[in-house]
Amino acid sequence: MERHFDEQLQELKNHLMKMSAMAEIMIADAVKTVVERDADAVSPVYEREEIVNQMEMEIDETCLKLIALHQPTACDLRFLMGAVKTNAELERLADEAVNIVQKASHLLGMPQLKPFEIIPEMATIARGMVRDSLRAFVNRNVTLARDVLKRDDRLDALKSQIAIILTDFMKTETASIPSAIDLLFISRYLERIGDHATNISEITIFVVEGIDIRHHADEKRSLQRPFAAAE
Amino acid sequence: MERHFDEQLQELKNHLMKMSAMAEIMIADAVKTVVERDADAVSPVYEREEIVNQMEMEIDETCLKLIALHQPTACDLRFLMGAVKTNAELERLADEAVNIVQKASHLLGMPQLKPFEIIPEMATIARGMVRDSLRAFVNRNVTLARDVLKRDDRLDALKSQIAIILTDFMKTETASIPSAIDLLFISRYLERIGDHATNISEITIFVVEGIDIRHHADEKRSLQRPFAAAE
Repeated sequence: MERHFDEQLQELKNHLMKMSAMAEIMIADAVKTVVERDADAVSPVYEREEIVNQMEMEIDETCLKLIALHQPTACDLRFLMGAVKTNAELERLADEAVNIVQKASHLLGMPQLKPFEIIPEMATIARGMVRDSLRAFVNRNVTLARDVLKRDDRLDALKSQIAIILTDFMKTETASIPSAIDLLFISRYLERIGDHATNISEITIFVVEGIDIRHHADEKRSLQRPFAAAE
Repeated sequence: MERHFDEQLQELKNHLMKMSAMAEIMIADAVKTVVERDADAVSPVYEREEIVNQMEMEIDETCLKLIALHQPTACDLRFLMGAVKTNAELERLADEAVNIVQKASHLLGMPQLKPFEIIPEMATIARGMVRDSLRAFVNRNVTLARDVLKRDDRLDALKSQIAIILTDFMKTETASIPSAIDLLFISRYLERIGDHATNISEITIFVVEGIDIRHHADEKRSLQRPFAAAE
């Protein structure tokens, strides 16, 4: 029974890694549409979305079954709850790739705007964050998880930079306003992918160390109990 | 033991309802900042965010403890997994209220743009969706959950409407471009709140009927197994 549980747990981790690899390819293809104006990169994003959606449902069911049938230890239970949450984050960040490709499809027929040059750097950071946040989760590697958290600042800075450039640009190039808005949203979607990777990293630290660093919980230990405050 | 579990489950539901009420007030205050230009509505949004964040962590811990200590039935286990997911959705949608108030704070010092008139209708729909999706979840009411799903179309339509108006507006009123972009993002954040309420409704249907209607699963039963496809 014990061995069987370990095998199933390993299989679950493999599935999460596959889902993460799939999401990473979706991000790459979506950004290829923006940067290389490659229309052929569009439909694979939608095809992979279907697979990722199926994966999400199956991983949830696997976690439920593992808990129901094996009554795992507190430590494994915490990991399985983390897997359910990570699973949801992965599906959401794959959705952001779909959002990107939708906007990128509008852009295909329009002149390319110079600030697009910031997008590949954002995409590289975001993809690395996704890959490493998943590796950190399945390997219970908090050092790597904390490293992912640090990279999010760079992504936010690039998003702010592109927003400033595009806003100025729109004032003089009014004909390009719709394209500039699309590009603005694309940068926002890449930032959101980084946010999901950040969430996964926080889940990892919570699972491994039992410390909930979401919302900088340690700074707030002295606060009143929230449900008392909410009465 | 059994009675104790039921009491704790009821308490969990009460906490989720309180968190939902808190998020609803945050949305109302955030939109008040946009529409009534009420600077006093800003700081309560940030204060409630802290409480909501604490609530999220406590609810997760409660779910973990209920599973670990009581080894619930498959039905209750499914509900508790749903509670963990609903909890995350609630925290995220409260974050969208914070996003709104950040943009609204920029707008306070600027002339008000006419398309803001669409925002209150969007906010009313979004708040109703949040309230009813939570009521549906804690009462296992799938009829109400399905009703929430339907309302999301109206929210999407309003978001598209305001996007078209604002894009045209920017072309002639270039000085107002930064404000128009802020308003565009505010409408997007309200749409996202609707998406989170939609997710909660789908979780409810999954918990009650055991049917996973995320991603229109029923249409895809005949598809190949995703992990086979992912090899």
